[in-house]
Amino acid sequence: MFYLTDEFLDNLIKEDIPLSDVTTEGMGISNKAGKITCFPKEKGMVTGIDIARKLFEKVGLAVSHCGVDGEIYEKGEPVLIATGRAEQIHCVYKVAQNVMEYSSGISNRTYQMRMEAERGNPEIKVAVTRKHFPGGKLISLMAATQAGAIVHRTGLSESILVFDQHRVFAEDMKSSIAKLKLDEPEKKVAIEAGSPEEGLDFVKWGADIIQCEKFSIAEVKHFVKKAKLLNPNLVINCAGGVNATNAYEYASAGVDVLVTSWVYFGRPFDIKMKIEALTDSGR
Amino acid sequence: MFYLTDEFLDNLIKEDIPLSDVTTEGMGISNKAGKITCFPKEKGMVTGIDIARKLFEKVGLAVSHCGVDGEIYEKGEPVLIATGRAEQIHCVYKVAQNVMEYSSGISNRTYQMRMEAERGNPEIKVAVTRKHFPGGKLISLMAATQAGAIVHRTGLSESILVFDQHRVFAEDMKSSIAKLKLDEPEKKVAIEAGSPEEGLDFVKWGADIIQCEKFSIAEVKHFVKKAKLLNPNLVINCAGGVNATNAYEYASAGVDVLVTSWVYFGRPFDIKMKIEALTDSGR
Amino acid sequence: MFYLTDEFLDNLIKEDIPLSDVTTEGMGISNKAGKITCFPKEKGMVTGIDIARKLFEKVGLAVSHCGVDGEIYEKGEPVLIATGRAEQIHCVYKVAQNVMEYSSGISNRTYQMRMEAERGNPEIKVAVTRKHFPGGKLISLMAATQAGAIVHRTGLSESILVFDQHRVFAEDMKSSIAKLKLDEPEKKVAIEAGSPEEGLDFVKWGADIIQCEKFSIAEVKHFVKKAKLLNPNLVINCAGGVNATNAYEYASAGVDVLVTSWVYFGRPFDIKMKIEALTDSGR
Amino acid sequence: MFYLTDEFLDNLIKEDIPLSDVTTEGMGISNKAGKITCFPKEKGMVTGIDIARKLFEKVGLAVSHCGVDGEIYEKGEPVLIATGRAEQIHCVYKVAQNVMEYSSGISNRTYQMRMEAERGNPEIKVAVTRKHFPGGKLISLMAATQAGAIVHRTGLSESILVFDQHRVFAEDMKSSIAKLKLDEPEKKVAIEAGSPEEGLDFVKWGADIIQCEKFSIAEVKHFVKKAKLLNPNLVINCAGGVNATNAYEYASAGVDVLVTSWVYFGRPFDIKMKIEALTDSGR
Amino acid sequence: MFYLTDEFLDNLIKEDIPLSDVTTEGMGISNKAGKITCFPKEKGMVTGIDIARKLFEKVGLAVSHCGVDGEIYEKGEPVLIATGRAEQIHCVYKVAQNVMEYSSGISNRTYQMRMEAERGNPEIKVAVTRKHFPGGKLISLMAATQAGAIVHRTGLSESILVFDQHRVFAEDMKSSIAKLKLDEPEKKVAIEAGSPEEGLDFVKWGADIIQCEKFSIAEVKHFVKKAKLLNPNLVINCAGGVNATNAYEYASAGVDVLVTSWVYFGRPFDIKMKIEALTDSGR
Amino acid sequence: MFYLTDEFLDNLIKEDIPLSDVTTEGMGISNKAGKITCFPKEKGMVTGIDIARKLFEKVGLAVSHCGVDGEIYEKGEPVLIATGRAEQIHCVYKVAQNVMEYSSGISNRTYQMRMEAERGNPEIKVAVTRKHFPGGKLISLMAATQAGAIVHRTGLSESILVFDQHRVFAEDMKSSIAKLKLDEPEKKVAIEAGSPEEGLDFVKWGADIIQCEKFSIAEVKHFVKKAKLLNPNLVINCAGGVNATNAYEYASAGVDVLVTSWVYFGRPFDIKMKIEALTDSGR
Repeated sequence: MFYLTDEFLDNLIKEDIPLSDVTTEGMGISNKAGKITCFPKEKGMVTGIDIARKLFEKVGLAVSHCGVDGEIYEKGEPVLIATGRAEQIHCVYKVAQNVMEYSSGISNRTYQMRMEAERGNPEIKVAVTRKHFPGGKLISLMAATQAGAIVHRTGLSESILVFDQHRVFAEDMKSSIAKLKLDEPEKKVAIEAGSPEEGLDFVKWGADIIQCEKFSIAEVKHFVKKAKLLNPNLVINCAGGVNATNAYEYASAGVDVLVTSWVYFGRPFDIKMKIEALTDSGR
Repeated sequence: MFYLTDEFLDNLIKEDIPLSDVTTEGMGISNKAGKITCFPKEKGMVTGIDIARKLFEKVGLAVSHCGVDGEIYEKGEPVLIATGRAEQIHCVYKVAQNVMEYSSGISNRTYQMRMEAERGNPEIKVAVTRKHFPGGKLISLMAATQAGAIVHRTGLSESILVFDQHRVFAEDMKSSIAKLKLDEPEKKVAIEAGSPEEGLDFVKWGADIIQCEKFSIAEVKHFVKKAKLLNPNLVINCAGGVNATNAYEYASAGVDVLVTSWVYFGRPFDIKMKIEALTDSGR
Repeated sequence: MFYLTDEFLDNLIKEDIPLSDVTTEGMGISNKAGKITCFPKEKGMVTGIDIARKLFEKVGLAVSHCGVDGEIYEKGEPVLIATGRAEQIHCVYKVAQNVMEYSSGISNRTYQMRMEAERGNPEIKVAVTRKHFPGGKLISLMAATQAGAIVHRTGLSESILVFDQHRVFAEDMKSSIAKLKLDEPEKKVAIEAGSPEEGLDFVKWGADIIQCEKFSIAEVKHFVKKAKLLNPNLVINCAGGVNATNAYEYASAGVDVLVTSWVYFGRPFDIKMKIEALTDSGR
Repeated sequence: MFYLTDEFLDNLIKEDIPLSDVTTEGMGISNKAGKITCFPKEKGMVTGIDIARKLFEKVGLAVSHCGVDGEIYEKGEPVLIATGRAEQIHCVYKVAQNVMEYSSGISNRTYQMRMEAERGNPEIKVAVTRKHFPGGKLISLMAATQAGAIVHRTGLSESILVFDQHRVFAEDMKSSIAKLKLDEPEKKVAIEAGSPEEGLDFVKWGADIIQCEKFSIAEVKHFVKKAKLLNPNLVINCAGGVNATNAYEYASAGVDVLVTSWVYFGRPFDIKMKIEALTDSGR
Repeated sequence: MFYLTDEFLDNLIKEDIPLSDVTTEGMGISNKAGKITCFPKEKGMVTGIDIARKLFEKVGLAVSHCGVDGEIYEKGEPVLIATGRAEQIHCVYKVAQNVMEYSSGISNRTYQMRMEAERGNPEIKVAVTRKHFPGGKLISLMAATQAGAIVHRTGLSESILVFDQHRVFAEDMKSSIAKLKLDEPEKKVAIEAGSPEEGLDFVKWGADIIQCEKFSIAEVKHFVKKAKLLNPNLVINCAGGVNATNAYEYASAGVDVLVTSWVYFGRPFDIKMKIEALTDSGR
Repeated sequence: MFYLTDEFLDNLIKEDIPLSDVTTEGMGISNKAGKITCFPKEKGMVTGIDIARKLFEKVGLAVSHCGVDGEIYEKGEPVLIATGRAEQIHCVYKVAQNVMEYSSGISNRTYQMRMEAERGNPEIKVAVTRKHFPGGKLISLMAATQAGAIVHRTGLSESILVFDQHRVFAEDMKSSIAKLKLDEPEKKVAIEAGSPEEGLDFVKWGADIIQCEKFSIAEVKHFVKKAKLLNPNLVINCAGGVNATNAYEYASAGVDVLVTSWVYFGRPFDIKMKIEALTDSGR
């Protein structure tokens, strides 16, 4: 459960309608009764439904049906239905659509990658990175986790991952790892490695997690075998160009976590927002 | 010039570092002197530089070189250089990278599509829609306009575009168009048409802009010829699946504006954030 | 429909009651049951009712009657009735009164000016400017449009109006107008003119809208005749000192839009907030 | 000194330019060098200068001259001068003008009323109420106090004023006044009176301030004489229709404080924003 | 009644759960039905209940019992009961507990000090200062006033208190006091005195309130006797190290107001948050 | 480095001065030149200096000396010196003092507890909890970490700790622990234990961290011996009533982390804010 503040929801709406909706007003249709039905154009996972429902309710629409985030829907199967005045529907439907489409896009890519990865290793985890659209962390992480991914790091403040960019400032990594383990006993210490050899050194020096950056499949296999001998509890991540097309191979190579930004990129998943006028008797 | 508020910049930073950076602190490198140099990994347009510069300055980095948004940079050519403490660099570099990469991704796709379109018609305009990442309007529109696009609509509050979703509430379009033209003399009245025939009716009834939704190239050509005869000042938009691969064709067909969301989707453009330690003498 | 965020409503309340209400607390009347009835002291248009209702609901009052923004009310005719505890009523009634009074003041002046203008030309539009109280755009534009005005420009980001202050930077207006028309085909190009002669040049060079700044009635008549010959679709605005006292004359002179800030200035429209104690039986 | 937050300043700017300035961009003049000089069109008090200066600086303009809020300026005498790019000037000048004009309007009315009042009694105070434009407390109170007024009440949370609307809930005023005085020894207890007789009772029961609501001049004189005999330290306010036209009379009648909302209503005070292009040599 | 904005409540929640709750999610218990019962571990005053209730409701919990802020509860006596999903309970219970514990801690100390003070003088007031946790004004003042304290000053903007730190800038206090009384007739003028002698001078010069800073009990007695002779309406505050242990003595010495920050410091008051799983039949 | 937003700083200031400072204005000393020097009244650790510096700069004071957060200062040794106008000093000094005093109070208690703990075990860590003043996370965690503590959990979103309150919803802990370890391989799994026996079971089932809740010293010793045999890499926390008075004993018993909220409670650490007037020559 991601907690959604009123400000988060209001900002989404206000981004699209800072003042009024001049088209709807100008056509003189503001107070017409209407119904909106949202459904995917193709079979797939739909998420962002709960956010969309809250957006609908914010403008006063009455929601009569609301699906569950993260389930697979058939083409045309309603995920959200609501009724209200035309001005309420037009105030918010595009934003709600955008949220569901971008969210579902991330979720479907995540789901696809997870299926591929689990085919190689049923216990593997797909972990999503900090490389989402700037300002879009909540929607992006919510979409990915609802599709079964875990969050690699929410940010800098509660996990340890040493990049090459940190190492340029360190005297030697052996003592850095020792210091990190001593200072943060409640956290695992993850170190990015540029090669299997480097990675093995970090294992010897005490790293809890090795993040293999752009290793070939062969390198990964070699590293997993050697490293797990040194520390059977070691967690091995692969990162850098890992996506649905190679997830099976990486997963089969014995790693524990596939770290990816790939799910953030790509097309939104099409959600149709069907709007109908209601006659008085139809209300 | 898009005005950037302190809240906008602070929210970007806080999204990634709500409290402190435990890795940098835990390694004991916070106060080391460092230099960061940002450059594209391939030749291309870079945008988001001005936002990145402001993010750097927000955390106290000293910017010694800053490029211009919307210019084409060579592979490896620096767009931004700054110096400061390691804790300042690590506090902000990933967010600044994300902004530049997502922004430049949008800009390069916009530029590519614009080049294709202008090949077909040097005076055509590429206009970007409201279908950007939810919450990402400023970065998305800034990226697109810096690459030469125009903004189709900033939202609902200051332009008129009648969709099919409005028409379900209207008695007849002829009087709706008349009412809109009368009520909003300072704005152009745009109507989405689902077919050339429909579009021609709207022209007769006074529409200033016809937005051709998913017309084939043949339909577009047919419509342009007929419609411009009816109203030489008519503006003709094409929307619905218009992107860089078909921009040349649509442009050649004689339309005025290509309306697209396509530039928002796809991979970020890679920007390398090279970090170096500075020795005391190197400062 | 202007969307009202929780932050907008909360800021209005908090501006007046940052902490508690020491008078009500100090008198020991906080939990007494009461009823509040709001009505105009004179016949006139009342707006801001919907905002006031939402303010009432925000503090927990139960609204039993709520009028419609933009209707004409008789002296003493209730526009809003609610019940609750004395502390809830006193927390919010002054702010709600202020909103309705300032809003209705703008609406009544707008209505008055519109009546005058329409007497001269039933199809003329009164358009309100950006010159409202700083920070008061939403209330001001909502009040004016509910009284039948249109919004001249919501701001700088989605309409084109070239002032004298832009022209000091331009080489020549002919090419500027051409560039604007080429670059923004979806928008009308409006140019402020300081004299009929200047205005006619701008028409020849392609302006869609001429905004006549401080023209005399005679100048307006002269300009309308000449300009409409050049371009029958031209929209002619009058601005600069246009208000209810001269709206009839300007309207009669054949212009299309009267641009005014005058409606923003002047006295609020008096709304009486009658508060009564309820006995237990009276609840 | 009113403290101005970045959010306050940014909100003023963003209200007018949520995204970019399409006119300036479309004319291709964004990067031209310019100078802006602000001066009153008539002699009068100018305020809002400090806010305007901060707005200018927020967008990057270089301020070369800045006047002092609350001083009397001659017609044409510069209050603020700045230089920068055309896009910076156009981004902010209208908002800065609005702030100075509305603020100076309030200040000049306050000054005028204060002069009238002090002619009747050099020690009298003009106090401004909570009845300002909703959301405009800071600008309104700043403008009034810079012109020599005091603030009657900033809101409900730190002063005591019993209105008729409180009294409908009270058993008897004698014990209410006693309770208020006992409970809030650090504050003066002010009671609104609807008649001299009522007021005298409140004085006997211990009120520190009597606010005479819509008393005639004769009633005021009568009340002042009687009331000051009962309590020489009593503070006597007059409220309800008190403004510059009757301030002299009320002041002469011996009251201590004139409570007014009148200064908030009326026209802004005209400030000319003269913009010039700078040639390279002129910079 | 302190008005609570949505932003205030949302910020409290978001501070603890910026994204999701990984423990609850990871255990797979998110959708289990549960009940939460809140009660004090010892007899005492409980406050913060109303804030806690609103926090519960914000996340969707159904509140079935809600106590009244400021009442004395027995050990184990429920103050708040709610039901909902485990993910809703875990999202918010710790924050709600924190609010009630810190608030009740302040309230119990306030109550204790007030009892001591009133034993010495039933009409004395305990007034709380601005020295609360930074950012915690609303919770702190609400907790203290619900326990019967008054607010000494809400801030700088609506009360007058001259500290030693002001006096370093003043020529002479006699004319400063005169100026303050003349300028702010609606407010009492309070002056901090460092010694009885100094205090008596301020009384002679017209101060309405003398705040005795760190006077001994003997000094207070001496000062009260002398000062009340000079001005029987004088309000005498004692500040500086005044707390529950010496409140009786100070109160007995004849002062009117005990000004204290002491209630802000110390342990929260323990509130048990008992969580139970509900079987389907138990719902 | 904790990143401080403009909003964070502005909110601190605005909490105390929502509008102007009526005392300073009323005394007529606003524009006098002054100097402020901040120093501890007793030897001790001072933190919050960096926040105070930024607050000073926000109001326009010129900072001439600024100490380093987390260092031990002698009684009277300046930590911050600034100059400016009296109105700037009075606008902000109390808030800056509050921040430094509350922050330093937390820091000194943390330091004291850490010294005690390290006497028992030089490698032990003191970890601070989520039980800080509501809304005060940043100041509280910054103060504690600058004194050498670590952060136990920043909130719910990036660490796993199973409380008794989670376990009421779980079928059996063995499978819950297994599920958590499988699902979150990048995080350590911490489980709160109510007794040594319970704790040993959790170790057997795979917990990475056991948090001993209110164990006696004897129980801790017993548990450490047994548990480390089962898993030498196990991290053992002690929580519940752990503070400076028993930190030595707990540390000596062999635990790894002392989890405490105790440092948040207690008196602020006194910081003197000495203000002096500057003569013109003294500036």
